[in-house]
Amino acid sequence: MAGGGDELKLLGMWASPFALRVKLALGFKGLSYQYVEENLRNKSDLLLESNPVHKKVPVLIHNGKPVCESQIIVQYLDEVYSATGPSFLPVDPYERAMARFWAAFIDDKFLVSWLKAGRGKTEEEKAEGVKETFAAVETLEGAFKECSKGKPFFGGDSVGYLDIVLGALVAWMRTAEVRHGIRLFDAFRSPLLEKWVERFGKLEEVVAVMPDIDRLVEHAKVREAEVAAAVVNN
Amino acid sequence: MAGGGDELKLLGMWASPFALRVKLALGFKGLSYQYVEENLRNKSDLLLESNPVHKKVPVLIHNGKPVCESQIIVQYLDEVYSATGPSFLPVDPYERAMARFWAAFIDDKFLVSWLKAGRGKTEEEKAEGVKETFAAVETLEGAFKECSKGKPFFGGDSVGYLDIVLGALVAWMRTAEVRHGIRLFDAFRSPLLEKWVERFGKLEEVVAVMPDIDRLVEHAKVREAEVAAAVVNN
Repeated sequence: MAGGGDELKLLGMWASPFALRVKLALGFKGLSYQYVEENLRNKSDLLLESNPVHKKVPVLIHNGKPVCESQIIVQYLDEVYSATGPSFLPVDPYERAMARFWAAFIDDKFLVSWLKAGRGKTEEEKAEGVKETFAAVETLEGAFKECSKGKPFFGGDSVGYLDIVLGALVAWMRTAEVRHGIRLFDAFRSPLLEKWVERFGKLEEVVAVMPDIDRLVEHAKVREAEVAAAVVNN
Repeated sequence: MAGGGDELKLLGMWASPFALRVKLALGFKGLSYQYVEENLRNKSDLLLESNPVHKKVPVLIHNGKPVCESQIIVQYLDEVYSATGPSFLPVDPYERAMARFWAAFIDDKFLVSWLKAGRGKTEEEKAEGVKETFAAVETLEGAFKECSKGKPFFGGDSVGYLDIVLGALVAWMRTAEVRHGIRLFDAFRSPLLEKWVERFGKLEEVVAVMPDIDRLVEHAKVREAEVAAAVVNN
């Protein structure tokens, strides 16, 4: 529970994996909060005022003060609520640096490659994106081995920073699997991550906030059709 | 000074602003270290083994263990040597989140726009880059006001995380000024940052590691000619 008088408000969007990171972090810390669903085609004044630089979700408003950017919010929650629930970042500075390194890799390499695979301008670019995505998955498999040290999660016995950062993408991976038959984490390429996904997906804090895959599939189809229409109209 | 038996080795490249961040952090903390200049056209085995994911400088090797990515290294040094020299990150979690937010902005918006201004594929793209760069400068001017609270540095009375992250780019800003006559921080657009640059540049820890502007100008000319030749050959 939030400390005496603490007010936590999350501006999110149900399909956003970045907003999901914050929901997961709040859930693992056992914090109560008010959730505000944003319409990204008609952003609220509160969102525009709280994140004037990027105008994006998620924004966590803590006692009236906004914090933006999912990875920064998760670290913020970990620092403010250090005595509540599990610690997301390891205590050891070297392990903290490694967690930050892999979190950056997830957004800057894995996710960027994956988006290229889906939204590349040419078939060639898309194929390149697929190749880079699978290379990133193999790298992440090594990262899991290094960070978990034989334990169930990136964070060891309990979930940590990387479980949240990568775990928030799991629903979108399932969506890609349903739509395109491509399984990013499989028993052949990444046996440790395949088992991790299963384990992570069963945690009650995860079940509580995971978006519905069918709804995500529909959402992805609509988005794709809009993007295609925009390209034709250009 | 590094603690008993601590061995710090920095793999860098003289013109790299990212390696410069680490030099600045080590300097402000008053730490001794071994510096290894890398030839980026013929990377050492040590660099390739220490940073197999990105194969880039800077890498800080601390007692044999490599830490990569400039912002992560600066945070690592701040955590390991918390009792030595100034603290780079603020103590308050909200202010820490703000420092991380602006550091991400410097790399993801300011620097990306600036690179677009210099390396855009068309004149239109370059012009767009220039516009975005100046918009980012105005945003950074606001960030300085917010973080410094009327004191000389982003970190307040002494240099902090953002002074290092942005300060490492100052030499390249001067180089752009010499080459193209464009002054990024000026008295009109960003009077606070203009004064900050001057103040920062006079610190002895900064003077000790700043690359020579004439040499950077030459380096930039050669790089640009190579890029142009590569485009013609494609």
